[in-house]
Amino acid sequence: VSPSPAVAYGVGAPPGGPARPVARVGATVLDLRALAAAGLLDSALPRAEAVFDAATLDRFLGAGRAVWEDVGARLGAVDDQGAPSGVVLDGPLAMALPFTVADYVDFYSSLEHATTVGRLLRPGAEPLAPNWRVMPLGYHGRSGTVVVSGTPIRRPTGPVGLHTVGPTERLDVEVEVGFVVGVGTEPGARVAPEAFRDHVFGVVVLADWSARDIQSVESRPLGPFLSKSFATTISAWVTPLHELEDARVSPPPQEPPPPDYLAVTEPWGLDIALSLDINGTVVSRPDLAGMYWTMPQQLAHATVGGAALRRGDLFGTGTISGWERARQGCLLEITANGTDPVELRDGRRSWLADGDTVVIRGTAAPGSRRPVALGECAGTVQPSA
Amino acid sequence: VSPSPAVAYGVGAPPGGPARPVARVGATVLDLRALAAAGLLDSALPRAEAVFDAATLDRFLGAGRAVWEDVGARLGAVDDQGAPSGVVLDGPLAMALPFTVADYVDFYSSLEHATTVGRLLRPGAEPLAPNWRVMPLGYHGRSGTVVVSGTPIRRPTGPVGLHTVGPTERLDVEVEVGFVVGVGTEPGARVAPEAFRDHVFGVVVLADWSARDIQSVESRPLGPFLSKSFATTISAWVTPLHELEDARVSPPPQEPPPPDYLAVTEPWGLDIALSLDINGTVVSRPDLAGMYWTMPQQLAHATVGGAALRRGDLFGTGTISGWERARQGCLLEITANGTDPVELRDGRRSWLADGDTVVIRGTAAPGSRRPVALGECAGTVQPSA
Repeated sequence: VSPSPAVAYGVGAPPGGPARPVARVGATVLDLRALAAAGLLDSALPRAEAVFDAATLDRFLGAGRAVWEDVGARLGAVDDQGAPSGVVLDGPLAMALPFTVADYVDFYSSLEHATTVGRLLRPGAEPLAPNWRVMPLGYHGRSGTVVVSGTPIRRPTGPVGLHTVGPTERLDVEVEVGFVVGVGTEPGARVAPEAFRDHVFGVVVLADWSARDIQSVESRPLGPFLSKSFATTISAWVTPLHELEDARVSPPPQEPPPPDYLAVTEPWGLDIALSLDINGTVVSRPDLAGMYWTMPQQLAHATVGGAALRRGDLFGTGTISGWERARQGCLLEITANGTDPVELRDGRRSWLADGDTVVIRGTAAPGSRRPVALGECAGTVQPSA
Repeated sequence: VSPSPAVAYGVGAPPGGPARPVARVGATVLDLRALAAAGLLDSALPRAEAVFDAATLDRFLGAGRAVWEDVGARLGAVDDQGAPSGVVLDGPLAMALPFTVADYVDFYSSLEHATTVGRLLRPGAEPLAPNWRVMPLGYHGRSGTVVVSGTPIRRPTGPVGLHTVGPTERLDVEVEVGFVVGVGTEPGARVAPEAFRDHVFGVVVLADWSARDIQSVESRPLGPFLSKSFATTISAWVTPLHELEDARVSPPPQEPPPPDYLAVTEPWGLDIALSLDINGTVVSRPDLAGMYWTMPQQLAHATVGGAALRRGDLFGTGTISGWERARQGCLLEITANGTDPVELRDGRRSWLADGDTVVIRGTAAPGSRRPVALGECAGTVQPSA
């Protein structure tokens, strides 16, 4: 038997119809409310029709791990048996943001990325700050400007130098994966790494658009603000965590050993192969498997101080990168801070030009007998307003 | 005639009843839905009953400047004439978070605060980074942990040193004022300083709880994260912007002149006198009037890159401070980074102790014939979990 097709969730509107929760099972797209109305999800989710009678996946995200896994299993079975009429959505769907983003946090967890960026921006100095190996460093981004794949990205204006305001001349994009919280916590609670699966619904592919000139002017001492707040793109499809079991691998060794609250008992490296495509040329193929800090450690860190989690909280891994140019996850690295342009079919680029289309793709467990394609994450750069 | 009493808005629940939008007019608290049902807001706000049939002020925030000003004027008139029965709420109200916080941004806009902190933390170096006078520096905070005045503040745990995890030993609080967006913008739009009043509903008093040891370990290079994300307190009462007209003063001169997008044509310094009270001792009296960057400049900066605004976006001014100890807005400054403790009735403090109760109070236009008391912002420190 061939492996069961992978399940992903999104929100889509058929031509002339309203946006609704949908599931993608292999190549088939199912209307989740219609599926629930046909009674096909009853065993997995009480009141399934009400859960999916919405324009977001929010209620489903709040339903919890047992439901996520049961619904996933039911969808595989529906696909095997042939879905009843009215449940399969043919033709194009206009995809929308799949869930309401509560808070958005972005990490900085690739050793290769942090080291290379440190060397490029502070040559001669120690590339990593002393805190880097002690905790997964992160910052809060702007949740209100998280957009769905396909949304045009307007080149931002801002202070590109200490004495110059204008459109950014160093527009970049970082290849990331994001994870989204389904089940929140009360204030004061901590989420230990082993409780990761009880809170996190699934993953998206994420593009962290970055204006490098603004970033270098504004970031001292409070970190990035305008340079990152204009847009963050996520894939329209959310892949549930249970689809990633075959992708789990041992992460790189951590030296020094992390503090107790970051200690892990099971491996949560994720073998997710990504590609960064600009105008049809793949300029890099980063892989998440080698990332130093893992997602359960990131979530444990974010909550160690007692900050509550909410449904819809989105966490980005930070740029996924490698030592070689062909594995690096942003143009800052790939072009050595603009000094070594990358070749596209339609010319060379140090940074993104107006009209450029970026597509980030990801596949989990790419070498296994059941690779899982994640949603793609795309955006086209528009001129500054 | 005596000046009309000031209006403020909140959400409160009478004993045994649900939370509802309320207005405070002088010493009188009015049930806004009941007032609307009695027809007393019809001239100001179509469908007023539906707007106030909610557990937040969100819909009212979205109604726009003309409505905010009209309702404010009607409430003054209702108070003059005596409110009908069933509209006045007597007795204690349990106050709730007044609006749904969308994104939360905190600035760093007091020259005195930034200079004093720079001198304390980096002695011998230039206290201000070169970007400080070029733009209002800010960062995104955690909107999901914004709480209403009175909510207990749990001492956070985290990396208090490079080799130590534990409860913060340097718990501090920063005196701030926050402003909240009522009318959002589309992506790509900029809010010029002169459009400030068309988007901003009003102000709250804000306590920015800060773990200084965690902050110093984690902040390089991405800024504060765990050290600020555990809690931010806002007053239960929101004072609408139109109540602050008498408080408007010329801000300090800006040298060098700001770039065009931050140029202002009308003065938006705000003479708001604040006090920081710990366990009944007022340890400092900061005033917002002297703050270098003004609120309209902060909002213009946050949107210059095209980031959309949403209803409920909250912006903190950053610590409000002065050169003298008696005007400084946080313990880091007041105690010279813990080296010169402050005297309370119940002992000395370098930093906040478990059980300490902080109350921040504010009065706009304190020297005028119509001072406007803002809501107070209070929290008691609880031991680490």
